[in-house]
Amino acid sequence: MPKKKKYFSPRFKQVGQPLIFDENVTRPTVQYAPIKTETFIYNSEKLNSLVQVDEFKYSDQPQVIHWINIFGVENLNLIARLKDILNIDPLTLEDIVHLNQRPKIDEFSDYIYIIIKMLYLDKEIDEIKTEQISILWGKNFVISLQEREGDVFDPIRKQLQIPQSTLRNRSADFLVYSLLDTIIDYYFVILENLSDKIEDLDEKITLNPDQKTISSILNIKKQLIYFRKSITPLRETFRYFQQTDSPLINKETLKFFMSIHDHVFIAIDNLETLKDLLSGMYDNYLTSISNKMNQIMKVLTIIATIFIPLTFIAGIYGMNFNHMPELKWKFGYPLSLFSMAVISGVMILFFKIKKWF
Amino acid sequence: MPKKKKYFSPRFKQVGQPLIFDENVTRPTVQYAPIKTETFIYNSEKLNSLVQVDEFKYSDQPQVIHWINIFGVENLNLIARLKDILNIDPLTLEDIVHLNQRPKIDEFSDYIYIIIKMLYLDKEIDEIKTEQISILWGKNFVISLQEREGDVFDPIRKQLQIPQSTLRNRSADFLVYSLLDTIIDYYFVILENLSDKIEDLDEKITLNPDQKTISSILNIKKQLIYFRKSITPLRETFRYFQQTDSPLINKETLKFFMSIHDHVFIAIDNLETLKDLLSGMYDNYLTSISNKMNQIMKVLTIIATIFIPLTFIAGIYGMNFNHMPELKWKFGYPLSLFSMAVISGVMILFFKIKKWF
Amino acid sequence: MPKKKKYFSPRFKQVGQPLIFDENVTRPTVQYAPIKTETFIYNSEKLNSLVQVDEFKYSDQPQVIHWINIFGVENLNLIARLKDILNIDPLTLEDIVHLNQRPKIDEFSDYIYIIIKMLYLDKEIDEIKTEQISILWGKNFVISLQEREGDVFDPIRKQLQIPQSTLRNRSADFLVYSLLDTIIDYYFVILENLSDKIEDLDEKITLNPDQKTISSILNIKKQLIYFRKSITPLRETFRYFQQTDSPLINKETLKFFMSIHDHVFIAIDNLETLKDLLSGMYDNYLTSISNKMNQIMKVLTIIATIFIPLTFIAGIYGMNFNHMPELKWKFGYPLSLFSMAVISGVMILFFKIKKWF
Amino acid sequence: MPKKKKYFSPRFKQVGQPLIFDENVTRPTVQYAPIKTETFIYNSEKLNSLVQVDEFKYSDQPQVIHWINIFGVENLNLIARLKDILNIDPLTLEDIVHLNQRPKIDEFSDYIYIIIKMLYLDKEIDEIKTEQISILWGKNFVISLQEREGDVFDPIRKQLQIPQSTLRNRSADFLVYSLLDTIIDYYFVILENLSDKIEDLDEKITLNPDQKTISSILNIKKQLIYFRKSITPLRETFRYFQQTDSPLINKETLKFFMSIHDHVFIAIDNLETLKDLLSGMYDNYLTSISNKMNQIMKVLTIIATIFIPLTFIAGIYGMNFNHMPELKWKFGYPLSLFSMAVISGVMILFFKIKKWF
Amino acid sequence: MPKKKKYFSPRFKQVGQPLIFDENVTRPTVQYAPIKTETFIYNSEKLNSLVQVDEFKYSDQPQVIHWINIFGVENLNLIARLKDILNIDPLTLEDIVHLNQRPKIDEFSDYIYIIIKMLYLDKEIDEIKTEQISILWGKNFVISLQEREGDVFDPIRKQLQIPQSTLRNRSADFLVYSLLDTIIDYYFVILENLSDKIEDLDEKITLNPDQKTISSILNIKKQLIYFRKSITPLRETFRYFQQTDSPLINKETLKFFMSIHDHVFIAIDNLETLKDLLSGMYDNYLTSISNKMNQIMKVLTIIATIFIPLTFIAGIYGMNFNHMPELKWKFGYPLSLFSMAVISGVMILFFKIKKWF
Repeated sequence: MPKKKKYFSPRFKQVGQPLIFDENVTRPTVQYAPIKTETFIYNSEKLNSLVQVDEFKYSDQPQVIHWINIFGVENLNLIARLKDILNIDPLTLEDIVHLNQRPKIDEFSDYIYIIIKMLYLDKEIDEIKTEQISILWGKNFVISLQEREGDVFDPIRKQLQIPQSTLRNRSADFLVYSLLDTIIDYYFVILENLSDKIEDLDEKITLNPDQKTISSILNIKKQLIYFRKSITPLRETFRYFQQTDSPLINKETLKFFMSIHDHVFIAIDNLETLKDLLSGMYDNYLTSISNKMNQIMKVLTIIATIFIPLTFIAGIYGMNFNHMPELKWKFGYPLSLFSMAVISGVMILFFKIKKWF
Repeated sequence: MPKKKKYFSPRFKQVGQPLIFDENVTRPTVQYAPIKTETFIYNSEKLNSLVQVDEFKYSDQPQVIHWINIFGVENLNLIARLKDILNIDPLTLEDIVHLNQRPKIDEFSDYIYIIIKMLYLDKEIDEIKTEQISILWGKNFVISLQEREGDVFDPIRKQLQIPQSTLRNRSADFLVYSLLDTIIDYYFVILENLSDKIEDLDEKITLNPDQKTISSILNIKKQLIYFRKSITPLRETFRYFQQTDSPLINKETLKFFMSIHDHVFIAIDNLETLKDLLSGMYDNYLTSISNKMNQIMKVLTIIATIFIPLTFIAGIYGMNFNHMPELKWKFGYPLSLFSMAVISGVMILFFKIKKWF
Repeated sequence: MPKKKKYFSPRFKQVGQPLIFDENVTRPTVQYAPIKTETFIYNSEKLNSLVQVDEFKYSDQPQVIHWINIFGVENLNLIARLKDILNIDPLTLEDIVHLNQRPKIDEFSDYIYIIIKMLYLDKEIDEIKTEQISILWGKNFVISLQEREGDVFDPIRKQLQIPQSTLRNRSADFLVYSLLDTIIDYYFVILENLSDKIEDLDEKITLNPDQKTISSILNIKKQLIYFRKSITPLRETFRYFQQTDSPLINKETLKFFMSIHDHVFIAIDNLETLKDLLSGMYDNYLTSISNKMNQIMKVLTIIATIFIPLTFIAGIYGMNFNHMPELKWKFGYPLSLFSMAVISGVMILFFKIKKWF
Repeated sequence: MPKKKKYFSPRFKQVGQPLIFDENVTRPTVQYAPIKTETFIYNSEKLNSLVQVDEFKYSDQPQVIHWINIFGVENLNLIARLKDILNIDPLTLEDIVHLNQRPKIDEFSDYIYIIIKMLYLDKEIDEIKTEQISILWGKNFVISLQEREGDVFDPIRKQLQIPQSTLRNRSADFLVYSLLDTIIDYYFVILENLSDKIEDLDEKITLNPDQKTISSILNIKKQLIYFRKSITPLRETFRYFQQTDSPLINKETLKFFMSIHDHVFIAIDNLETLKDLLSGMYDNYLTSISNKMNQIMKVLTIIATIFIPLTFIAGIYGMNFNHMPELKWKFGYPLSLFSMAVISGVMILFFKIKKWF
Repeated sequence: MPKKKKYFSPRFKQVGQPLIFDENVTRPTVQYAPIKTETFIYNSEKLNSLVQVDEFKYSDQPQVIHWINIFGVENLNLIARLKDILNIDPLTLEDIVHLNQRPKIDEFSDYIYIIIKMLYLDKEIDEIKTEQISILWGKNFVISLQEREGDVFDPIRKQLQIPQSTLRNRSADFLVYSLLDTIIDYYFVILENLSDKIEDLDEKITLNPDQKTISSILNIKKQLIYFRKSITPLRETFRYFQQTDSPLINKETLKFFMSIHDHVFIAIDNLETLKDLLSGMYDNYLTSISNKMNQIMKVLTIIATIFIPLTFIAGIYGMNFNHMPELKWKFGYPLSLFSMAVISGVMILFFKIKKWF
């Protein structure tokens, strides 16, 4: 598998090749990095959890809900097994393993498929990282697939431990809501982080703008661009919940999905506001830098300009002509100094009147 | 409760946690800042008012209207009581206590819920402050919830004292209209304030632009960004009044709500115009600063340029060569001065012809 | 009444106060500036005209059309009489006296109410002035209300004098069409005026750009912003005529209203084109100013740069060391001059090759 | 008739005046420039053509198609005759003579009226000229009206000469299609011309940008603005052909009109691409000019900076103090020269290390 | 045939001429460049392939699928034969030979016609090249027409060799899907290439920005403009697949077409993100260049400014006045040097305090 690039995830499918989950295709047998899976089988009464490598189990008992959480999508044969067990469409599998998807919701006869971007802060390099999450759920299973190990779902795992929690007492769609809610809650954590940085920069710019300030501004701007790419499609995508009448979504859960949609709007609003603030700060930086520079140049140029005529006069009386009457005058020297003082005085006055400094 | 940030209000609900007004959740028992409530129970004949701390009363008498005005939302258990008494949806309570909401209207079976931003001028720091107001009303109650004490509703309190006022003689929706109208009237007060500042700046820029001018421009721009974030969603939100057939809104009151919608459009129009004016002023500032700077640099550089060849000539005749015939000429000195005068004259003429100053 | 501001007209209604035309409100009895009214009572056979101060008459004769043209809206009690005589809605009266409205059309059961902005040139200060015109018409009356005396309706007054004119032989809606048509015709007069100014500026910029040019550009831009604010809402507003089936508008008159709508589109198109031209001119100005400045700085810096090494050489031979063999050479002086000439020649050649001037 | 302005054609109708083709209006009898008309009366079997001044004939024979092509619209009485003969609406006549219309299609009971802009290159001044073409057609007549003599319709005239051409064998709508197709084909000729110019400029900018380049860029931008104003409304206007069921348009001809609509989209796409390219070139020009300038200033400033300390040292030893021991040293002079060489060497090294040149 | 231009392909049809595939038109008999055709006749059992020059065969056997792939469209008579054999509409032929079309889908009674842009990298000049592909398919034929030889369809040719491949076992629409999928897969190859370049530039800009960097930025921007022109229309065009009920598209194939539509959205999203990143980099470049420049100018100007007063003092004592007492002082020289040191020290201190360097 090719190395991870910055802006583009690699595609398993090569240009013009048939789909990799096509029935007639022999998938490459290369040994990929192992996939870790985590399975929770629960209802209000009991909870079994299971961690495995390169395998997952689905037992199809109608009374319990299966949550199968899969880290990594590189083992194509394992992903292909989803098709056999749960009757997932090959095109869905295709979407799962290609990590450059756009957030979307597809409704199939047996399951609903959601792609969403999970954002989290990589604290070491202080940057936002994006990970594609695929969630597909049917009557009593929820499968979530992530790019890498490590996620934001710990609070959900904790709640699953509590028998009287709402999560344990509702159907599969409520688990999906909880997953989505957690992901979108995290958007606000990141917005807050960005907003704090912007607040800090705002102070720095008015006090002491420098090159580092501007590279911070442009860096945050870049992060906002990625953020926006990840969340704006959700505005349209989640409209799905207003229109659907899928039996997989209960009426009571629907209003929770609606409130998530509201949160997406709030996040986008905040994002746009941050973007506007940032571009205002950029203008602020530019004018304050150019003001500072102008100030320096002006003062220095004025100093130079005042001395140039004086140096010229000194040059005149440094000439070696035989016949220069002034040189013999008794008060020639003090007079020359005095005239220099007068000239510089007049120039300073002129600059003051013109308000040049 | 964490400290109040500049751009983001804190969230009570932590990432991935269940809703705080969920039935099965034990809300933290931390002692929050006390909530102040103010209750007006009125109809055309009588008016009782009541101020309490950390408590409110609702008596459910069909012949009177209850207006319960609550300052502060931090006492979660008190807010939770709304659910028990008035059958308010937990998600509504959730929206009430999270102060980063977007303006919206939600219609429920028993009540209508409006979130709107109250804007007011903090005169001390001369800045616009935003406060989230939640208004929910049912058959004969209106509950308004604010972030802090202090609001713009004094005129309404006064009118409640007047038995023959329209307010006292109409149903609950008219009180809601009055609250909204007051809030939106205040938007115009702020627009006027901003517009006055812009007018002042406009004069300053043409007369004497300086660094302070530009930071004022950028500051006003920032305020307009916040203002816009608060009011533009209302354009869509208030469309609700054109479509609703809720029994909670009387036909006669409807046209008042419509006129509020018109006012929102006017406010947005004015806001956009101010934004355009401001960006024109920004351009104006930049060109006038750069013109002033260019003017200075040009004059100074020309002065320097004129003296440089003159100083060079003085340098020539300051050389100590033994054999420099000019030095012995009787009129060498005046001739050199004359040639300097000619050179500077020609240069000035050249600059004049080229229209360089 | 507070002094007239630049961007905002004052509001009679204070924040949170009830409507001033509410039944239960005692309007302030302050003595406002007197209102002038002008009444034309006409049909194809006869025409009576009447000028009054602080009073107007409406006789309700079905066979004649009343055109009541009112200058000034400050006398609230007089405006309130419209309600009593013609059954005008209080909200309409409210809109009439608040002069910061947005263009709109409201259909009521008995009358139609139009707000539109009249633009005219204030020739003394060479600026566009905006005035709010309210027009309301019913079966056989047309009431037009203006902010101040003086308008663009003289051609209509003249045509009313001509018994065989179309105006005298049609119903009230044709008078409304004529008023609107006149107002919108005037938009084109202003567009032509602005376009002439832009044409003049366009020539100036290529020939001799200066500070005045740019302030003219920015001033016209400001006027276009106001202009746009006044007319763009009409694009949507006049769509009303395509949808209405009000009995107050005859089928034959409808196509005239449609052609006005076309004119609004043409005006907006021209406005946008002027705006684009202007922003192109602004770019043109900036580059031509900076080119001129660069040209000057370059030439001057080159002159300075050529002389600096020469002055240095002169400085060398101006030193007073006892042992400087060159000083005693017979051709030391001419040699030094020659070497200076060579150096400056080489530098000029270098600059020429580098195409620096 | 007032002189032709650059951006606005004059209006015959004065502000607030009734329509000039109103029945009751006596049109001014001023002697206008004569109108030239050209009439083709044809069917598949025969073709009569006729050129007249200030007159046109329409014979109303059902078996033949009349194409009346009119150059100039100043003779109002002649235009008014259209109304009498062909029952054209006065508002249509109004649109015909006012040359600042927006492209549009109006369907009337007896005819369809199209306004479109004909663009052609004025080769002498190398600029795009716009001319308003009105086309109205009924059952078997097509009338086209142009501002001035000279058009792009010669290929159509030639085809009319060929009895077996499609044009001669189809109904009037096919002639209209041919006229529109010719006009829109010409848009591409102009786009190609502009695109060639942009290609030329693109090369010049990277090789040798100068003031002329930028004024060419801004000039082309201005032409694109006019071009866009003329063609973008067609995008909406031609949607008419998708919706109409006018008996004047045959089903077979309809698909030809649709293909014209496609061409309009292609033209607009190309226009937008040219605009984007142009604005990219403008950025390119600005940065390359400022780079060139910076390069010059940097080199010159560095030269000046190197010589300033050297000149200072020369100045030191040019002082006339009695007690300056260095002056008497035997190697004082070469030592001073050597120290100067060292200083300049160090400075050059420093600048090199800092990568300043 | 005229030479290939950069932005516009030549048109065969001249302005105002009738369609070149009109029945009555004699097409020019000029000998054009020969057209190469490639025909695959296949079903699940057999595959015949055939390469010809200036000819193609279509045998109309219902049990097999014909894929006729044509390179070059210059031989108009050959293209015209499509009409005779397969009953293709003349307007479609017209679209095929004019290479400046916009992506679109036209449904006819017997076939569907798609225009799409094939993008590929010209590796020699490292630029994106665009080629127009026309695809038309009916019950059991698919005709694809390209501008030049060489394409991205090799993977499809390979799959046709495999009897058990999905391609061989499905109907003609699956071949069309495969062609489109291959073309759009290639868009991502190009996006990845551009994204890699942008990543490289991003590093260069922060480390060592120079003139070449900016011309690379502007070059990529230009390529994005072309790219966008080619793909954005697809967003609307492919909506066709959601609405069509053409019998030529099987239900099972439909979902494959839908997934292509998704890919188009992803490509456009990525394109827009790249565009935003690029414009951020442009800002970054400008500020970092101007910062570097300012830094240089500041240091140099400060050096010059420090030496100017010193040189002036040296000039003073270089004057030749007879009566200059300081010159005779014993410590005149060291004192003067000391005063110079003090002055420069004070100035450096002043600059340090002002934070000028």
